[in-house]
Amino acid sequence: MAAKSARQSSGRSGFEERTNRLRLSFPTLGVDSILVSHLPNIQYLCGFTGSAGLLLIDESKATLFTDSRYTFQARQEVHGARVHIAKQGLLRAVGEELKSQRRRRAVAYATAQTTVAQKQTIDTIARGRVRWASDENVVEKLRAVKDAGELARMRDAAHLISGVFRKVLPLIRPGTSELDLAAEIEYSIKIMGGSGPSFETIVASGPRSAWAHARPTSKRLAKSELVVLDQGAILKNYCSDMTRTVFVGRAPARIRRLYQAVLQAQQAAKQVIRSGVKAGDVDRAARRTLKRFGLARYFTHSTGHGLGIEVHEMPRLGKGEETLLQEGMVVTVEPGVYLEGIGGIRIEDDVVVTAQGAVDLTTAPLDFLEL
Amino acid sequence: MAAKSARQSSGRSGFEERTNRLRLSFPTLGVDSILVSHLPNIQYLCGFTGSAGLLLIDESKATLFTDSRYTFQARQEVHGARVHIAKQGLLRAVGEELKSQRRRRAVAYATAQTTVAQKQTIDTIARGRVRWASDENVVEKLRAVKDAGELARMRDAAHLISGVFRKVLPLIRPGTSELDLAAEIEYSIKIMGGSGPSFETIVASGPRSAWAHARPTSKRLAKSELVVLDQGAILKNYCSDMTRTVFVGRAPARIRRLYQAVLQAQQAAKQVIRSGVKAGDVDRAARRTLKRFGLARYFTHSTGHGLGIEVHEMPRLGKGEETLLQEGMVVTVEPGVYLEGIGGIRIEDDVVVTAQGAVDLTTAPLDFLEL
Repeated sequence: MAAKSARQSSGRSGFEERTNRLRLSFPTLGVDSILVSHLPNIQYLCGFTGSAGLLLIDESKATLFTDSRYTFQARQEVHGARVHIAKQGLLRAVGEELKSQRRRRAVAYATAQTTVAQKQTIDTIARGRVRWASDENVVEKLRAVKDAGELARMRDAAHLISGVFRKVLPLIRPGTSELDLAAEIEYSIKIMGGSGPSFETIVASGPRSAWAHARPTSKRLAKSELVVLDQGAILKNYCSDMTRTVFVGRAPARIRRLYQAVLQAQQAAKQVIRSGVKAGDVDRAARRTLKRFGLARYFTHSTGHGLGIEVHEMPRLGKGEETLLQEGMVVTVEPGVYLEGIGGIRIEDDVVVTAQGAVDLTTAPLDFLEL
Repeated sequence: MAAKSARQSSGRSGFEERTNRLRLSFPTLGVDSILVSHLPNIQYLCGFTGSAGLLLIDESKATLFTDSRYTFQARQEVHGARVHIAKQGLLRAVGEELKSQRRRRAVAYATAQTTVAQKQTIDTIARGRVRWASDENVVEKLRAVKDAGELARMRDAAHLISGVFRKVLPLIRPGTSELDLAAEIEYSIKIMGGSGPSFETIVASGPRSAWAHARPTSKRLAKSELVVLDQGAILKNYCSDMTRTVFVGRAPARIRRLYQAVLQAQQAAKQVIRSGVKAGDVDRAARRTLKRFGLARYFTHSTGHGLGIEVHEMPRLGKGEETLLQEGMVVTVEPGVYLEGIGGIRIEDDVVVTAQGAVDLTTAPLDFLEL
C-alpha cells in the first residue's frame, strides 16, 4: 500500500519511489549508477526546478549537483537526494565524485541529452573510472505513465487553458493583432493561476495559418480569415497544449468542409486510442480519414505527442511508431491540414489513455467557431 | 565599402557577409566546412527562426536542413543558404550530404551544442567520410560583437523593458502576487511591441528575493519587503535583460545601505568597461566594492554576461575571465547580494562596450524606489 500511495503523490516518498523504480532498470542496462542531466527528469526524480543541475543516482544514494545560486532553493525543493553545491562547475564535481569511488563505475547516461563537451569534461576528470552506457531513455519511459497526482494536475492545466481560450474569444475580430491576442492568452494564463505558457503561443491568421509553427506577428486579423490558436499553460509544473482554429466572419462552404475533415480525423484518432494499441495506429487513423477527403498530403506532421512536465514527451503518435500505449499516458491528438495561400486548420486536445479508451482533458468546444 | 554596409544590416547581403566572415576561420580550425546546430547561430547566419534546423557551410555554399513543417517559413526567412527539406530526419540528411562528397570532409562542430547521439547518427550514415574538429565557438565569437543594425535593435529592446518597468510600478504594493506582477510585465512587453519575454520573468519578494533565480509564485507582496524584478524583452529577435530591486514601504537604513553598496559596485564595474579591458577586471571591480562593505561573500554569481539573440552570450564577466572586451559587445552589469532570511538586492543594466567606456542601453532609473 505504501508504494501505491507514493505513486499518487510527488511529496518526499513519491520522489523516493520514482528513484527506486528507476534503479530497477540498472540490471537491464548493465550499470550501477545513472547520471541524469535533463532538467525535467531531475525535477521528476527529486523535485528540483533550478536551471543548473546534475543528478547522480547509484544503488544506495542520490546526489543533486547544483551551484551556489541555488543553495536555498535546493534546500527547500529537493527530496530523496543529497544536495552538493559545486564550487567549480557541476561536471567537475560529478567527475570527482566518480573518481573518488573505490571501484570503476558503470554509469548510464542520455546520449541525446549530453553534449560531446560535457562527456569529455567528466571523462577528463574521472579518467579510467567510468564505463558509460546509454540510459535507453529510462527516465522518459517512467515519466510517460502518469500517476494519479500528475493526472490531477494535468486535468487542471488542460481546464485552465480551455478557460483562457473562452476568455479571449471576444478579441478574435478584425483589427486585433496576432501579437495582441498572444499577449492576452499568456496574460490570462497567469491571471487564472498558471505559472506561464508551456510554449510560445501560436496565433497565425490568414495565409500565415498555413505555417504549422508560425510565431505571432503584428499582422492584424482581417475578415474572412482562418486563425489558428495553439496555446498551453503550465500549472504546478505540468503542461497543457491545445489548438483551436476559428474563422473571422462567416466561412465559405469549402473551409467548413476542411474543418469537418480535420475534426473527423481527430475523432477517428481518439477512437483508436486505448492501452495496448500501437502509437502508429493512432496516427494512421487520422491520416486515413484525411485521405478519404483527399487531404492526406496537406497533413505534414505527426498526429500527437506525449505531454507532462514537458510539452513534448514520449510517446510520439507518428507514422509507424511501434510503442504500445499504456494506461496513464497523456497524449495530444492534433491532426491538421496546411494549404499554402489559403490557410491551415489544426484541432488539438489532450487525452488520457485508459483501458477503455481516450478520456478528454481539454474542455474547450470542438465545433467550428465563426466569429 | 560593400563589406561595411553589409555589416550594418541583417538583410540578404548581411547574412552572406556573416557567412563569409565565418569561412575566414576555416584555415585556423583546419577544416573545409562547419556544421552549425545551435538555433540562434543558425538565425544569425541565415535568418531562419524555426525550431528544427542544421546549417552546413562549406567553402562555396551553405545549406539549411529543416523539416516539412518549415517549408513555407524557410522559403520566406532564409537568405544566403539553400533550403533542404529533410524527409527522414535532419541528421540523416546531413550525413548523406557529407557522404555524397568525393573527398573526405573536415567539419568543425560545436562540442558543447552537439549531443553524443547526434554525432553518432551522422557518423553512422557518413561513416569514414568525416573528420571532426571543435569549432572553438567561432560563431559565438562573431556574434559577441554587434553591428550597427543589431545595436539599434538592442537599444530598442532595452528601452522597451525600461518602459515596461515604469508601467508596472503602481502595481508594486501589498496584496499583488508575484505571479500577477510577472504576468503584467510579460503582457506589457507584448502590448508595447515586443515579441515576448527574453526569459521567464523573475519577481521575488521578501525572503524569496534571496533566491537569485526564484520563479514567481502566488505569494503576495507585503509591506516592508524587498522585491527583485528581473525582466527582459525580445524585440526583432534581440534581447534585453534588466533587474531592479525596490522596497514596499519605507526601507530601514541598513537595507538602504545594502542597496547603495550594490549600486556602487555596479557603477565601479561600469567604469572599468571599455574595449581592451579583460572581462575578469570588470567582475573584480564589482567584487572589490562589495568587499569594502563586507558583502563580498553574499555576491554569489558573476557580474554580467553578453546579450544579443540570446539572453546569455559571450563574453562572461566572471572571476578571472581573460577575454578582452571589444567595441560593439553588449553586456549586462548586474552585481547582487543575497542574505538568507533577509532578502536579495540586484541591479542590472545592459551596456555597449566602446573605446571610450560603457554606454547604457537601459533607461530605467537606478535610484532606490520605496513604494
